[in-house]
Amino acid sequence: MSEEGAKIAVIGLGNAGLPLAAVVADSGIMVMGVDINEERCRLINRGGNPIPEEAGLEELIKRHGGKRLVATPHFEDARGCSTYIVIVPVFVDGGNNPDFSILEKALYSLGKILKKGDLVVLETTFPPGTTEGMVQSRLCESSGLRESDFFLAYSPERIMTGYSLSRLREFPKVIGGRDEESGIVAYQVYKKFISNLHLVSSAKVAEMIKVMEGCYRDVNIALANELFKICQDMGIDFFEAREKANHQFCHIHLPSTGVGGHCIPVYPWFLIKEMEKREHFSNRRLLRTSRDVNDEMIRYWAERILLECMKINKPLSSIKICIKGITFRAGVKEFYHSRNLALARLLMEKGLDAYVYDPLLSELDVQKKGLRYIEPDKADLLFDPFELKFQISKNKRTT
Amino acid sequence: MSEEGAKIAVIGLGNAGLPLAAVVADSGIMVMGVDINEERCRLINRGGNPIPEEAGLEELIKRHGGKRLVATPHFEDARGCSTYIVIVPVFVDGGNNPDFSILEKALYSLGKILKKGDLVVLETTFPPGTTEGMVQSRLCESSGLRESDFFLAYSPERIMTGYSLSRLREFPKVIGGRDEESGIVAYQVYKKFISNLHLVSSAKVAEMIKVMEGCYRDVNIALANELFKICQDMGIDFFEAREKANHQFCHIHLPSTGVGGHCIPVYPWFLIKEMEKREHFSNRRLLRTSRDVNDEMIRYWAERILLECMKINKPLSSIKICIKGITFRAGVKEFYHSRNLALARLLMEKGLDAYVYDPLLSELDVQKKGLRYIEPDKADLLFDPFELKFQISKNKRTT
Repeated sequence: MSEEGAKIAVIGLGNAGLPLAAVVADSGIMVMGVDINEERCRLINRGGNPIPEEAGLEELIKRHGGKRLVATPHFEDARGCSTYIVIVPVFVDGGNNPDFSILEKALYSLGKILKKGDLVVLETTFPPGTTEGMVQSRLCESSGLRESDFFLAYSPERIMTGYSLSRLREFPKVIGGRDEESGIVAYQVYKKFISNLHLVSSAKVAEMIKVMEGCYRDVNIALANELFKICQDMGIDFFEAREKANHQFCHIHLPSTGVGGHCIPVYPWFLIKEMEKREHFSNRRLLRTSRDVNDEMIRYWAERILLECMKINKPLSSIKICIKGITFRAGVKEFYHSRNLALARLLMEKGLDAYVYDPLLSELDVQKKGLRYIEPDKADLLFDPFELKFQISKNKRTT
Repeated sequence: MSEEGAKIAVIGLGNAGLPLAAVVADSGIMVMGVDINEERCRLINRGGNPIPEEAGLEELIKRHGGKRLVATPHFEDARGCSTYIVIVPVFVDGGNNPDFSILEKALYSLGKILKKGDLVVLETTFPPGTTEGMVQSRLCESSGLRESDFFLAYSPERIMTGYSLSRLREFPKVIGGRDEESGIVAYQVYKKFISNLHLVSSAKVAEMIKVMEGCYRDVNIALANELFKICQDMGIDFFEAREKANHQFCHIHLPSTGVGGHCIPVYPWFLIKEMEKREHFSNRRLLRTSRDVNDEMIRYWAERILLECMKINKPLSSIKICIKGITFRAGVKEFYHSRNLALARLLMEKGLDAYVYDPLLSELDVQKKGLRYIEPDKADLLFDPFELKFQISKNKRTT
């Protein structure tokens, strides 16, 4: 690929990076996608789509894969680009601190090919201050460039698996620079492929925007879970009350088994840990409580399952309990921080005869997770964690 | 007034009851309004409006006061009615438990005139279960009737001082019966003057709907306050971030000095105390934390005021600090649980030279509250609790 052809490199072709790379390519810009997964790169270059649940992506990759969108496992191949978009995951570790290891590796490799005048835009969600802090330091260290030698900005991805293309095309997207010039340069580049684009005053503000959204979701799901438990306790139909309580000024969310996935249960920790590091504990009380309320929902559901078991005419230990779905979200084969998986494990730890069934998983898939597979009709009690519904199999009920 | 003339009695002509009574009268129904405040009754009967800040109310009372809407301090005068709407306040006491004393007094008096076949509808916001529990018991005790002798329902007021008429006319209003027949009878009566009316399955659900709305507001204001403190701590403009974070799925509220008034800071306690009574402490963690976060905001603002004082070229104790507004909400002359009033008192307790100014209050009004009045231009430092803005008077700044 010639230097003037490939203009934009997308570092990370995961669930967030690949839809973005496809949208950039579809806008007419040559894209070099970099991902350590060689098999994924080969598939993309053949026009194949590794994320089938992403609406519209298949068509874009078929059209551009190996042509306007070239995937490679080698950073070296992206040397000719002038814009580098970094969109690799940042998780939290066992202590809920951000784990930058994947990002730091990517920044080190990027630094090796970074030139004076290039633009680097981060899309990964991480704690506010990371772009102007850690990211800039690593890039300078690895490239030997000074801060002022390259433009640096931040624009948070707002994808949601299944809806990522429409989000990129319609949803407002914000971008903010490490400094004013970086912001303007990044805005001009992004404007070529993002129509609903908004320049904000700094990278830090753009980082906070994304984290705040996650916090809003987490706290409001915790509120829904708490109100659901209270309604249950008081003999009130939560769903009926919620439907009528909600209006243009009231947005009570849905209850659940907790919050899983890479986003909502992770982002609040970015702020919680920052406040704890500063010993400003009173500044993170609500966020921390919400995390706890959501994570502890699996204990609530385990108790509810036990109460259902009491209705079945068998000793507790021999009631076959089936958790019908262990992905973190219905219809998406992902398990990161899945509370449904955690619920199945909790039941097993308590010595119950617990099994799982998931329409997205084979018996072998289930066994690989250390769980036991069952066909739903063989279980005495089914619990659907997405519908929050119990089902006792026929002729098993005591009364 | 003849018996067939007065059909509906509204018990309580306060900020919630009077707009309702006026709307009922305006729909063509004869209304007998009962309120212990004799002066207020006389004013209404002369066609005068005691709530000037309520848009459109003046016109309605001018038209119907003393004619289709007759106010009286005597329950006896409402004896001829067949529907009784009770809309008197329930507050919380010093221990945050509901204080039913005003309501119980009203129910006792109502029982004395209640007849077989009458309908009683409660509009007061109180803990779910109160209608079918305490309210029914008191009415039976006082009237000597059996439960099945009268219809009983609940329909929460959704007023907001200043917008109450438009809320009654446009906003969805729910109603639920103690039993199915009560619900249907009450729905038919209310339908005559409320167009956007929805029947729900029980009085308890209707009670919970109102309380849930308040909890949603309180938790989301606590979230806004917490995110505001975090942004301040991290050097990020909260308002810029909020504006861009909010979209159709994200509704981050505005920060404040806390939450005052009769509604939002009160309703969460109805659920918190009920869960504490049942010793289900884990079911009220988020609601409780939110209450604390909001109530403690005055400490945060006191600290911010001190930091502003450090910029002024005077000893701390001689800096004249003015809190510009002590009502609980801008433009409404009410003080119930006002955090701005509490902030002014906190500063005085700390021995600071604190004063207040409020465009709605005279010097004497201020002094009656045990506070000291100042003209804003005489103060060294102004804090506007509604705008959350500081202003240091000219020539007082150190640097």
